[in-house]
Amino acid sequence: MATTMEQIVNLAKQRGFVFPGSEIYGGLANTWDYGPLGVELKNNIKKAWWKKYVQESQYNVGLDASILMNPKTWEASGHLSNFNDPMMDCKDCKSRHRADKLLESQIGEDNIEGSIEALSFDEMEELIKTHHVKCPNCGSQNFTPIRQFNLMFKTYQGVTETSTDEIYLRPETAQGIFVNFKNVQRTMRKKVPFGIAQIGKSFRNEITPGNFTFRTREFEQLELEFFCKPGEEEKWFDYWRAFSREWLLSLNMKAENVTLRDHEEEELPHYSKGTTDIEYKFPFGWGELSSISSRTDYDLKRHMEVSGEDMQYIDQATNERYLPYVIEPSLGADRVTLAFLIDAFEEEEINEKETRSVLRFHPAIAPYKAAILPLSKKLSDDAYEVFQTLSKTFMVDFDETGSIGKRYRRQDEIGTPYCITYDFDSREDGQVTVRHRDTMEQVRLPIAEVADFLKEKIQF
Amino acid sequence: MATTMEQIVNLAKQRGFVFPGSEIYGGLANTWDYGPLGVELKNNIKKAWWKKYVQESQYNVGLDASILMNPKTWEASGHLSNFNDPMMDCKDCKSRHRADKLLESQIGEDNIEGSIEALSFDEMEELIKTHHVKCPNCGSQNFTPIRQFNLMFKTYQGVTETSTDEIYLRPETAQGIFVNFKNVQRTMRKKVPFGIAQIGKSFRNEITPGNFTFRTREFEQLELEFFCKPGEEEKWFDYWRAFSREWLLSLNMKAENVTLRDHEEEELPHYSKGTTDIEYKFPFGWGELSSISSRTDYDLKRHMEVSGEDMQYIDQATNERYLPYVIEPSLGADRVTLAFLIDAFEEEEINEKETRSVLRFHPAIAPYKAAILPLSKKLSDDAYEVFQTLSKTFMVDFDETGSIGKRYRRQDEIGTPYCITYDFDSREDGQVTVRHRDTMEQVRLPIAEVADFLKEKIQF
Repeated sequence: MATTMEQIVNLAKQRGFVFPGSEIYGGLANTWDYGPLGVELKNNIKKAWWKKYVQESQYNVGLDASILMNPKTWEASGHLSNFNDPMMDCKDCKSRHRADKLLESQIGEDNIEGSIEALSFDEMEELIKTHHVKCPNCGSQNFTPIRQFNLMFKTYQGVTETSTDEIYLRPETAQGIFVNFKNVQRTMRKKVPFGIAQIGKSFRNEITPGNFTFRTREFEQLELEFFCKPGEEEKWFDYWRAFSREWLLSLNMKAENVTLRDHEEEELPHYSKGTTDIEYKFPFGWGELSSISSRTDYDLKRHMEVSGEDMQYIDQATNERYLPYVIEPSLGADRVTLAFLIDAFEEEEINEKETRSVLRFHPAIAPYKAAILPLSKKLSDDAYEVFQTLSKTFMVDFDETGSIGKRYRRQDEIGTPYCITYDFDSREDGQVTVRHRDTMEQVRLPIAEVADFLKEKIQF
Repeated sequence: MATTMEQIVNLAKQRGFVFPGSEIYGGLANTWDYGPLGVELKNNIKKAWWKKYVQESQYNVGLDASILMNPKTWEASGHLSNFNDPMMDCKDCKSRHRADKLLESQIGEDNIEGSIEALSFDEMEELIKTHHVKCPNCGSQNFTPIRQFNLMFKTYQGVTETSTDEIYLRPETAQGIFVNFKNVQRTMRKKVPFGIAQIGKSFRNEITPGNFTFRTREFEQLELEFFCKPGEEEKWFDYWRAFSREWLLSLNMKAENVTLRDHEEEELPHYSKGTTDIEYKFPFGWGELSSISSRTDYDLKRHMEVSGEDMQYIDQATNERYLPYVIEPSLGADRVTLAFLIDAFEEEEINEKETRSVLRFHPAIAPYKAAILPLSKKLSDDAYEVFQTLSKTFMVDFDETGSIGKRYRRQDEIGTPYCITYDFDSREDGQVTVRHRDTMEQVRLPIAEVADFLKEKIQF
């Protein structure tokens, strides 16, 4: 049976993965808080990304730039003038809508010449009239004209609300990398090709957030800007496109749920030499997890124009001086966490009478690597010593309540790959029973060998 | 010779620890970006905190709540009405000042009855007149009346700038924990005493940010809210007070640079049963790194009043129902990163002619655990294999440029605890030379043993 979003949202809430934000106050417009298991899952995913994109990479180094940036940044990047959604109101029921989304849902992308993104406001309004597009809230056809709505969150720094103090919450982490290109290249003595990776929060004032943690106004990104020599961008585009897909699969994401969608030329901004979206098959349809973009030297060139600073790279071997081209693999941390949660979820029939709910996470991203279960409360103190030893290296749970069977199910449901049962024999023979989440098979292991056993299993 | 802030700021910038934010645009009011080494250092510190406060703890679990919260949160916490600074302008030169800071610097805390924090605006204005407090910018004594300035960053969500859509960037991570108290307790089946830990960004519109990364408007916090039974708060206050100090020292922070300052009764808010600041001896004076507060049931009670939700805990063994008391150890991530940087820094005289600059980080927080240095470029490929193996487990550097002596100095300067030199013998005997940063002593080790050697050294 196909997994539904309702199942996932319920599991997430009941098992401490994701809670509605500010829930005691009725929430706040699709904000979500990661609970004790969610924060471990998400942190493990971020660590797995950093490991492959930074730690093991001969090319890349990390960065952590501020969310608050000089507004000139957004002039250079184009976000001040171009980062808008086409918005309109229903005059009858006062509900607010994105014109492009109404066209997509009521006419369909296939019935529109070219892409919706390329339409002007006039063309959209024309289509809305001729196709009798309706307000999804009240059904009437009485809209205001379409107007620009900038998606950046605006705030004021310093002590007055004047326009000179207007700043923005960054809508993407990428620009923090571009403005630091020279600082990083110089201090780390990097030679092109090299990349700068960053994990951090971004904010977009989306008109219609939704689908659980898939589209939220506050979200986290994992971005790499990879700088290469002009002319080599195709090779590196292919490299990071394959690398990004492989990273997902290496954490056990099912290949049949992942697809690569190359953008058509008319979808691309003028400076772009290609974009591929990596999409995941969510219960609500295919949705973008990641995108790999070939951005040419557009960003560095714009920053050079607006700041007046020389952003060129000097190749010391050849004395060439040029603006590198950029390949940008960008991944949504919340989206990919949601995708791993959905992908791992299974209601498994064990036999005719019994089913179990299990999260088949790759051990590297599972919140707990193991749970220590004393068979009886009389054994708690001894079992707790095992917890103390293992918790120095791994995130492990300690659970002494309920029958062993019930505790196994509880750990299955939160995706703990190994249950370690401490029984009355353990005191004598120094061995414990290790039960595997997926196969439910059990082996007897000396306590002293458990750490190495887990270490090998969680390798990534 | 005492370390100066100038030395630290220069080192941070030149070696890729911390760059000025949006530097190519002339910066943005004391924002800072962590460079490739800074992000590793800070992440290592955050991991070390999570390890001791969450992973190894039998009491605590983690959380990651949104920065954007329902504004009712700030009504309940008191931030909407009380989170203000006393601000005034110089009428002559139009510069802006915090009245309390002018009193502190020009009259001195000791010459004022009670604490400055306890003064009313009228009392402050009186003191400013009677003591002839001057504008530090132009010297005149012509100030506007003092007015309240709320320190929360305000923004608007949704599509219009109306007051109903006004939201705030959180000024502390703590409230994200309090609103989730019941969700966490219930889903994790926690029994009091237990704690909820969180790492995340907060924002305060400080009138006078400064001292490098010590006081910034955007900053990161490591907070624990520990819930205990009323009556047991003193025991737990002492526990977390000692634990927090010990955590700093266990990462090699020098004891003589750390002091505990218990707040006087008149400094405490009405609900508080005690606060201790952990201060570090910065080059600009003692500054707060961390504070441990005994907050009673104030926060949970306020959230219960404002939300109408029952925040009480039910002790299932005794059927008692109560609001737990809270101990809050709170640590500034940017401040403690800065403190570790300063604490580790040394200009060491090696002999009469030579000095070296060295960062004596605890290996657990050093950006690189080791650097792989091929003695000759001819050995690069072989040495690179060592990098590939070690980088699967550790953050390691690979440096093949310059003399070995120069490379040693470079690694000393960024705090890499071990340099691993691959020489012509290494090919034959499978051994490398491992040089220790602090003692500069060298040992010869089989390549196959290096990983275990490092693993043991970086333990924390």
